[in-house]
Amino acid sequence: MGAGRPGYDEKLLEILRAAAAVFAEKGYHRASIRDISRATGISLSGLYYYVRSKEELLFLIQDHCFGTVLDNVERLLAGETDPVRRFRLFVENHVRFFVNNMREMKVLSHEADSLTGEYRRRVQAKKKRYTDLCMSILEELRPPDTGIDLRVATFALFGMLNWIYNWYRPGRDVPVAELADGFSRLFLQGCLSPASGVAEAMPVEPAPSIWRR
Amino acid sequence: MGAGRPGYDEKLLEILRAAAAVFAEKGYHRASIRDISRATGISLSGLYYYVRSKEELLFLIQDHCFGTVLDNVERLLAGETDPVRRFRLFVENHVRFFVNNMREMKVLSHEADSLTGEYRRRVQAKKKRYTDLCMSILEELRPPDTGIDLRVATFALFGMLNWIYNWYRPGRDVPVAELADGFSRLFLQGCLSPASGVAEAMPVEPAPSIWRR
Repeated sequence: MGAGRPGYDEKLLEILRAAAAVFAEKGYHRASIRDISRATGISLSGLYYYVRSKEELLFLIQDHCFGTVLDNVERLLAGETDPVRRFRLFVENHVRFFVNNMREMKVLSHEADSLTGEYRRRVQAKKKRYTDLCMSILEELRPPDTGIDLRVATFALFGMLNWIYNWYRPGRDVPVAELADGFSRLFLQGCLSPASGVAEAMPVEPAPSIWRR
Repeated sequence: MGAGRPGYDEKLLEILRAAAAVFAEKGYHRASIRDISRATGISLSGLYYYVRSKEELLFLIQDHCFGTVLDNVERLLAGETDPVRRFRLFVENHVRFFVNNMREMKVLSHEADSLTGEYRRRVQAKKKRYTDLCMSILEELRPPDTGIDLRVATFALFGMLNWIYNWYRPGRDVPVAELADGFSRLFLQGCLSPASGVAEAMPVEPAPSIWRR
């Protein structure tokens, strides 16, 4: 299994990766199961062995991404109590994961409203858990007199981190470790402050895509 | 004319506003000229008097938005030489404009790749002018030893500002002046710095939608 999460076998992960590429390229509503069959080389009946519908595919992509990023960050944060280090681990985990999964990131962003009913409810619950975790980290960080609304700060951070699928070019822009470090320093100290010891660089290991190649 | 720009009469602006709402709701590719006819109450032949195609509508929405936000910021910055004030004016203009045009913002973000040929080239040119302006402002601001890549800083700022269409609820979240002020202070000083005199609040006047009501 790609990232050691139960319930996702290799073949399904391969299907999800191809479906994310198709949805990112054509948009969810224009893409068909037939497109995904073509992209994977798996017959329609083969695909229907794994998923019931196109919507289930979209659900599984979103559920697996939020689930993986949440599992990873919870594992990284376990035992870490320093607020600045907790913040940097959160940012690095997010950036590392999504740089390796930019097509999924585009799908999560553009198709956030495309799920319905129980699928939507379950993804919303994971997103809320992730957002609440981020808010709690920022709340520990802020000096009491900063005066910036916590919701504004949280979504300012998510915006900064999530926008990368629009502009970041792996191999041409700065490496992922420097990207995560730049975001962390900007957010902690702002662009007017010279780099200081508070936010010393922490190395980021290269991570593979969540989908097996 | 909505924002005093030449070439856009009131009726056309009304059509663009309705088309942006339809594209934001259904996605550009799924929306039809017929949907826009229904949304505006203007007959198909009436619409074709103003635009040749659905793609021209998408082009005009993008061109008008980037054109307006650029014109406004260039007017605001004329004569202002202080880097911090220039930065704050840029942020306030961007936030004020897009809080009033969040459906357009969603369309600019989700349909950035939907334009082709000359339409695409013209919008790209305006985007580049806007991005270059932002980069030049950040370049003046940065102390030489900040060590954060300029492209990373620029798109970190755009991400922070542009993500609002995903979460900001006018009337429930902080008012637009406080939103712009929060973003500016976060970006200039970071969330670890207490609010200081450098970034004293500058009031933001409420601005109407670019589309006439």
